[in-house]
Amino acid sequence: MTLLVVGSIALDSVTTPFGETADALGGSAVFFSVAASLLHPVSVVGVIGDDYPIAELDRWTERGVDWSAVEHAKGESFRWKGRYSYDLQNRETLETRLGVFADFQPKISDHLRDSRYVFLGNIDPELQLMVLDQVRKPELVVCDTMNYWIQSKRDVLMDLLGRIDVLMVNDSEARELSGDWNVYRAARWILAQGPSMAVVKQGEYGAVLVDKQSTFYIPAYPLEEVFDPTGAGDAFAGGFMAHLARTGDLTAHNVRRAMVYGSAMGSFAVEAFSVNRFHEIGHPEVTDRVRAFADLVRFDIQPDP
Amino acid sequence: MTLLVVGSIALDSVTTPFGETADALGGSAVFFSVAASLLHPVSVVGVIGDDYPIAELDRWTERGVDWSAVEHAKGESFRWKGRYSYDLQNRETLETRLGVFADFQPKISDHLRDSRYVFLGNIDPELQLMVLDQVRKPELVVCDTMNYWIQSKRDVLMDLLGRIDVLMVNDSEARELSGDWNVYRAARWILAQGPSMAVVKQGEYGAVLVDKQSTFYIPAYPLEEVFDPTGAGDAFAGGFMAHLARTGDLTAHNVRRAMVYGSAMGSFAVEAFSVNRFHEIGHPEVTDRVRAFADLVRFDIQPDP
Repeated sequence: MTLLVVGSIALDSVTTPFGETADALGGSAVFFSVAASLLHPVSVVGVIGDDYPIAELDRWTERGVDWSAVEHAKGESFRWKGRYSYDLQNRETLETRLGVFADFQPKISDHLRDSRYVFLGNIDPELQLMVLDQVRKPELVVCDTMNYWIQSKRDVLMDLLGRIDVLMVNDSEARELSGDWNVYRAARWILAQGPSMAVVKQGEYGAVLVDKQSTFYIPAYPLEEVFDPTGAGDAFAGGFMAHLARTGDLTAHNVRRAMVYGSAMGSFAVEAFSVNRFHEIGHPEVTDRVRAFADLVRFDIQPDP
Repeated sequence: MTLLVVGSIALDSVTTPFGETADALGGSAVFFSVAASLLHPVSVVGVIGDDYPIAELDRWTERGVDWSAVEHAKGESFRWKGRYSYDLQNRETLETRLGVFADFQPKISDHLRDSRYVFLGNIDPELQLMVLDQVRKPELVVCDTMNYWIQSKRDVLMDLLGRIDVLMVNDSEARELSGDWNVYRAARWILAQGPSMAVVKQGEYGAVLVDKQSTFYIPAYPLEEVFDPTGAGDAFAGGFMAHLARTGDLTAHNVRRAMVYGSAMGSFAVEAFSVNRFHEIGHPEVTDRVRAFADLVRFDIQPDP
């Protein structure tokens, strides 16, 4: 089952209370694919400039990330610079330089047009639509977005909502998009626009999956050390979709499992700068963490005394 | 198993985006005992002035709330007036009038000194200690507090921590008390001061139970309509302790169940002003909601494909 992600491939410079990193691997497509590759092969569509450290990407090739569809353009790669507050609750963007990303137009090569699982990372919704126009019959399309697009390209986003299966956003995005501060009503609103599922991520608290039949909540993994929240949402999406792609099972109970795999990947992402934590782990660590999630929420109801 | 609560019995005037109420039943002991009474009889120690609407309290007597140890003092009852923001995320205290509560000194009558389950609602920690000096051999002592006491009576609170089993606070209180913004490290810090369990409430997100062995997270019930958050934490405590008192079972798996009963009661509390929602529900509604919690977090891990 081919898994395809379209998104940014960036160089991140991040300052947290615990240190800083400069020009490290980042971007939605990178976090997504690195996390996904622990579970299933993944193909990436995106663009990099001639300054991108390709050797760093290549380290992930043997893990199952196919970078061959990444466009190499003349110019500077996309760069993001940000700083987190002491408690990691807030972050400030210090600089965004689009570089070659400014002219990016995703072209899906023929062998990827039959991808069955497609993740539209947070990029211009017009580009997201452009991707959908090129893939043939995807089994599942999951889409992320952000407040910037909700404000500037609302109409395009609304079109997009009619063509995707899952909108996966954080709570402030769900609120802004729906105009409703209650996340469950916001999720209901999203479903009314077309998607069959809404996934609302709530950062350190967890994530909720809402479909027409039921609501599923998975708390965030209880970490005593959080190092850098950057990329957690994209790693979540990577775990979510890779679990679905490798099982080929879109039943409700398997989508719940996918939420847990997503949460596990999100929890790994925040344990180090960039995608560094993923260098240290393999399938056993993922399985252990998924088991730990089961323990985290486990209770049984006894018959009344 | 006698269940005892010591706390405030107040008259609340609350404004939310959905309406307002004036001089309605409120206070930690009221929310606690009304919620608890759905599961187990509960005795209340507190004080009211000569203006308190006793008939309103009496409505709960037949449900199992024993108000006979409530002191009737000359003067005005404790009053609190507050207003919530449009999204219920923030609240502003407009007025606090202690009235007869200013001179309150809890006296535990002889028949209540053998109470096995004791909840020390959020009052002056010196009064909480005074209660502990009067009860004989409680099975479980659970204690709440607030930032005001953490700032003004830290030493007394530290003494208290050495004498209780469970500290049950919200996340901002856990952070302020421990001086650590990470709630899991904060909980660990609390355990190091004496309690065998720390329960950290996170409002609309849920609540976490941390003991030496494990961590349990129960998300908040997904409500599309939240009316008034006042008293949710005390109703949570009421459900938590009443479940333990009625089962007399302090094993880890039953404490997890108690967290779910607590969450159920918290979710009812916020569905109406004051304790009004509890007038409409009985044991079947509680059981249904507990089952809904089980469905909310249910997933199974499949063997790897």
